[in-house]
Amino acid sequence: MSQLPPTRFGRRRAGAVLVGLALAPTVLQAQTADPLPSWRAGPRKQALLDFVAAVTREGGPDFVPPSERIATFDNDGTLWVEQPAYTQLIFVLDRIRALAPQNPDWQQDPVFRAAIAGDMRGAAAGGTEGLLKLVGAAQSGQTPDAFQQIAAEWLEGSRDRRWNRRYDELVYHPMLEVLAFLRANGFLIFIVSGGGVEFIRAFAERVYGVPPHQVVGSTQAIRPGEQDGRIVLTREPRVDFVDDGPGKPVGIARYIGRRPIAAFGNSDGDYQMLRYTTEAPGRRFALIVHHDDAEREYAYDRESHIGRLDRAMDEAPRRGWQLVSMKNDWAKVFPWA
Amino acid sequence: MSQLPPTRFGRRRAGAVLVGLALAPTVLQAQTADPLPSWRAGPRKQALLDFVAAVTREGGPDFVPPSERIATFDNDGTLWVEQPAYTQLIFVLDRIRALAPQNPDWQQDPVFRAAIAGDMRGAAAGGTEGLLKLVGAAQSGQTPDAFQQIAAEWLEGSRDRRWNRRYDELVYHPMLEVLAFLRANGFLIFIVSGGGVEFIRAFAERVYGVPPHQVVGSTQAIRPGEQDGRIVLTREPRVDFVDDGPGKPVGIARYIGRRPIAAFGNSDGDYQMLRYTTEAPGRRFALIVHHDDAEREYAYDRESHIGRLDRAMDEAPRRGWQLVSMKNDWAKVFPWA
Repeated sequence: MSQLPPTRFGRRRAGAVLVGLALAPTVLQAQTADPLPSWRAGPRKQALLDFVAAVTREGGPDFVPPSERIATFDNDGTLWVEQPAYTQLIFVLDRIRALAPQNPDWQQDPVFRAAIAGDMRGAAAGGTEGLLKLVGAAQSGQTPDAFQQIAAEWLEGSRDRRWNRRYDELVYHPMLEVLAFLRANGFLIFIVSGGGVEFIRAFAERVYGVPPHQVVGSTQAIRPGEQDGRIVLTREPRVDFVDDGPGKPVGIARYIGRRPIAAFGNSDGDYQMLRYTTEAPGRRFALIVHHDDAEREYAYDRESHIGRLDRAMDEAPRRGWQLVSMKNDWAKVFPWA
Repeated sequence: MSQLPPTRFGRRRAGAVLVGLALAPTVLQAQTADPLPSWRAGPRKQALLDFVAAVTREGGPDFVPPSERIATFDNDGTLWVEQPAYTQLIFVLDRIRALAPQNPDWQQDPVFRAAIAGDMRGAAAGGTEGLLKLVGAAQSGQTPDAFQQIAAEWLEGSRDRRWNRRYDELVYHPMLEVLAFLRANGFLIFIVSGGGVEFIRAFAERVYGVPPHQVVGSTQAIRPGEQDGRIVLTREPRVDFVDDGPGKPVGIARYIGRRPIAAFGNSDGDYQMLRYTTEAPGRRFALIVHHDDAEREYAYDRESHIGRLDRAMDEAPRRGWQLVSMKNDWAKVFPWA
């Protein structure tokens, strides 16, 4: 809006009126009421609009009562950027570096040594086991509240290299529109992410409008105890639940307690969640964000080490999942672009 | 209302008007708007009214935004009857008996043998370990959805012996009023119970208006798998989280992700939850239902094997927790009474 002249009837508004005069009233009405303006017209957008219309049509064959309108969203690569590395991994490595001076013994471990040196490839060479060690060391020893505060402060002070933006600005505008559209239609939105639950809770309410109790994610053990006459919960290094792949339906059953009727993902890590959502009777919806836009964001799928999309893409057509082309289906990628 | 004559201006209404004429208009207004009519006037009721008024008064020193108005409720003994045995334990024993013919090996185990014989004392003799074995055996082998259905059907077909009522009719009317009152004031209600999460979800939405994702409870492990080309989740016998005592703050941190500002319990199993709620800065509220009404319900506290109330009662005064006398503070106990 900053480019508008300071009159209320500005340039853009005048343009909209001129366009409007050339259109039939019903088309104009439909156009101005478009809940997904960043989505280009096409079968993917139409499928989502049709689904929501069907499940909210009272008395219709596909009607679903509001309490059962559960929609689950993956986070990395579905709601925000996950390249060139998961944001939480960047956070973990930053934290390992920051904590290294107080932990001289870390230098004995090659995985930690690589992490401290900023060598992401070397840090990744330890595989899942090495990664879980880093994650545990970087994200334990404090209360869940204090950890969330640490994550929030890190997000506040960190910038991504490509756009020089806060990481929580690298969210997909078309997906924010989907969140708002579903919410306006009585849906309950849950994030179901492989990321750590408290890390996501540090920004999910502010950025996505999703409150803490509607975030499902991977967890580290929490130890209850006392300190100075108060109950104190302490995050332990041990990762006790991985909310990814086959873990996603488990997380959904445990935290949400109801099968979603719509699910949104972008990788094979979401494959089981999309199946769990669409394998039940009744009208269902699943959508995969395909990262095929190297210019505006990134292009990757089968060969990627992050957000690998292979099996879920192959099976999308026969399972009736919507494969969204970021390049073709999205008129806009970021809110600020 | 069944005793009212079929005119709109009935006996009770006429009585209310007569009383009203004798009162100042403001008092009448306050009286007719009483959100807790089953609570007798007194310091406990007043404390709850004052707390809610304070945290919802915009611009006031104790104002809490709606997203942080989290209230947690224990279930057994706080929202519904827990005597002469936890309802879920009665369910478990009924199920052990029903499944015994298909499990002849159970006869080798004295705890199972006692359970099958309906000998609750013998079944309890195995201690926590024996109990967890029974719980695991009775509540595993099916999907979480199927288990919830089994629990719902059991509730449908079972009656308690004292009142010959469905167990989910043995809910405390004054507490239902508290749920409605808090909800009307923008609170988010969570059940935080030592009971199994899916057992409570089987009735919580219908009876308390609390949706599945707002129920925190003890859990059994869930194993993801496939069957006939579909994803199938299976409940395992292993209890992997006990949401009781020190586990309640852990469950709150994990599932809710925000510290409650109000908590309601009835036993030492709620002690840590009440402390966790009231040990943080800002205006807080905690309430304990003291079962001292053998006539209308049950009378028990320090010596009870179920819902033992000892330490929490002792510390209530200095911690500012409201100790509610069921006998004196509640004008009515059950909705149907």
